[in-house]
Amino acid sequence: MLDSYDLVYETYGTLNAARSNAVLICHALNASHHVAGYYADDPNNVGWWDNMIGPGKPVDTDRFFVIGVNNLGSCFGSTGPASLDPRSGKPYGSRFPVITVEDWVASQARLADRLGIERFAAVMGGSLGGMQAIAWATAFPDRIANAIAVAATPKLTAQNIAFNEVARRAIVTDPDFHGGDYYEYGVKPKRGLRLARMIGHITYLSDDAMMEKFGRILRSDEIGYHFDVDFEVESYLRYQSDKFAEYFDANTYLLITRALDYYDPARDFDHDLTAALAAARARFLVVSFTSDWRFAPEHSRLIVKGLLDNRRDVSYAEIDAPHGHDAFLLDDSRYHALVRAYFGNVARAVGADVSTAADLELPGEPLVGGERTEGSSEGFAA
Amino acid sequence: MLDSYDLVYETYGTLNAARSNAVLICHALNASHHVAGYYADDPNNVGWWDNMIGPGKPVDTDRFFVIGVNNLGSCFGSTGPASLDPRSGKPYGSRFPVITVEDWVASQARLADRLGIERFAAVMGGSLGGMQAIAWATAFPDRIANAIAVAATPKLTAQNIAFNEVARRAIVTDPDFHGGDYYEYGVKPKRGLRLARMIGHITYLSDDAMMEKFGRILRSDEIGYHFDVDFEVESYLRYQSDKFAEYFDANTYLLITRALDYYDPARDFDHDLTAALAAARARFLVVSFTSDWRFAPEHSRLIVKGLLDNRRDVSYAEIDAPHGHDAFLLDDSRYHALVRAYFGNVARAVGADVSTAADLELPGEPLVGGERTEGSSEGFAA
Repeated sequence: MLDSYDLVYETYGTLNAARSNAVLICHALNASHHVAGYYADDPNNVGWWDNMIGPGKPVDTDRFFVIGVNNLGSCFGSTGPASLDPRSGKPYGSRFPVITVEDWVASQARLADRLGIERFAAVMGGSLGGMQAIAWATAFPDRIANAIAVAATPKLTAQNIAFNEVARRAIVTDPDFHGGDYYEYGVKPKRGLRLARMIGHITYLSDDAMMEKFGRILRSDEIGYHFDVDFEVESYLRYQSDKFAEYFDANTYLLITRALDYYDPARDFDHDLTAALAAARARFLVVSFTSDWRFAPEHSRLIVKGLLDNRRDVSYAEIDAPHGHDAFLLDDSRYHALVRAYFGNVARAVGADVSTAADLELPGEPLVGGERTEGSSEGFAA
Repeated sequence: MLDSYDLVYETYGTLNAARSNAVLICHALNASHHVAGYYADDPNNVGWWDNMIGPGKPVDTDRFFVIGVNNLGSCFGSTGPASLDPRSGKPYGSRFPVITVEDWVASQARLADRLGIERFAAVMGGSLGGMQAIAWATAFPDRIANAIAVAATPKLTAQNIAFNEVARRAIVTDPDFHGGDYYEYGVKPKRGLRLARMIGHITYLSDDAMMEKFGRILRSDEIGYHFDVDFEVESYLRYQSDKFAEYFDANTYLLITRALDYYDPARDFDHDLTAALAAARARFLVVSFTSDWRFAPEHSRLIVKGLLDNRRDVSYAEIDAPHGHDAFLLDDSRYHALVRAYFGNVARAVGADVSTAADLELPGEPLVGGERTEGSSEGFAA
């Protein structure tokens, strides 16, 4: 249990006077609140969904007030295992609680309270972010008009869990892990984090996309007959994983993969997803990608079926894209056109007139009750 | 370079007087020469392809003289990195040369020489073993009447190489690896081996097969909210990988995955597989499994196309099996009926009359020329 926590967030666009045009963007494994744009003093640090969100983009920040939030337990400013535990003055480390998708959604609802947003025009996310959008619709049916779940799943398969387990074992068995309290030893379990990231990368890309991108191309003219880098794909994985191990926190990796494993809304309804989704009132847009073998279209179709069984309003698109799971982050014209059209309907339905702005005060001060939600109002520059 | 090496093998059945009924079985990653049957003093140690090979089985040892051989570089008796280097008196370790599929085939041909087998009725293998069967057909076209390649590929994809690379990085970055010379430190890089094996296991099974076998079943009634074993699939992977790390050699794992990565017969023919297969004269049986996502049916179809382009005699079967890559080891009735029928034809074509046996002396003594092939004549008991 945490006595209190911070959530870091960014906002883009203007909350209108009716407070009807707020859109919450939920992130997946390694992303953050920095969803779009860049900071004036760091122009190369572009938000992770910048191709989707911004002025004139599919999620148009000229019409919507978009909020990016860093999840509880992450390592980009919100309270996480690397944060100092006020009780001990040391990083939480192994004492940080296991977090669920439902916990994230509950903490995001408290942020919405603090911002005076009674109801979101939409909650949107890809992959794990899409699970949060679904969880929003069932946990807070009156507070979300639209749920957009891209490349998501209503539950991980045994294979999905297995890949997560290998990643966790890589981290936990790294001698530098120290039971999760590596901060106190001045080390990081980078070996484990690198392996975890490599496995992740492979599952985010399709076999075809990897073949297209790397093929069997060698780094030099000749085969080296060694166990070091010979193929381009090896070089890519090492580069990506080295980079990741520098900036990401290993305990956060454990937490987030576990949240993925545990997410299974049907479990409390005798494994009946239709029953689990019955509470939802939002309209849904569900999108999957044909080459996504991590959360294949079958996963999305389960969501769609569960919603249709409940006579909910759901649009579903299965995009024929070659990029695998990562397609949700890429600039595919059919996918983006679809989201653009959907958000056009959202704007008409919720009333996205921004000619009069709400009296919004971004909070930085402690909330009463021991909980603090820390505002980050870094400007959006497009 | 090795001055000399041992190859351990087992034989089943009787080499006929015409020496026309010999079948070589090539193994994949972690298997050995112990292909079928069991030893009188170790009845639980059943050969890895015992459902396929034996008296009255699809590869019928009442008709064929079957040889199982442990590949050079392995860790079950043939010379490998854990063997003592006669020059130093210490294990080869990091000084053991990188081995290719073509090297294995060449060493197997020397074993055949030693046994007085001029021409194999068939060379057969699954996965990496299938690649050896193909390599036999092109390297020694006059010495192989039939090549049976099951769940094989003419080259790994970038994704295949990527998974191998993660496994290798897990081993190489284990602090107990000591640059490959861990034998001298009295340790084994078990952490890395375990991770490698877990990754392997996931790729051997289909998503559906894992879901069928493990689902999302928990080890206890309630979710544990920890990073230890919660799901059955986690327990399975840990058990399998613990077992593997006890008996397998880490350097052998590196060697064999690298042999897989490098195998690409078309490379020396301007990436033209048809040209690469032109030298083959054998008849082929190529088998793939629909749910094999490691070496999917598309891989086998490339082999078939290359052979047909050369007007070779090839039978191809794509078996609708749910088990993934591992299907080649399982007792699927359609698959086994097919192999049985094929070997019936082989017996008729080569003449598998075993009423008169060849004068076969299983060697144990050194060969001249610095090379030694060590015989293992443990009896086959069915």
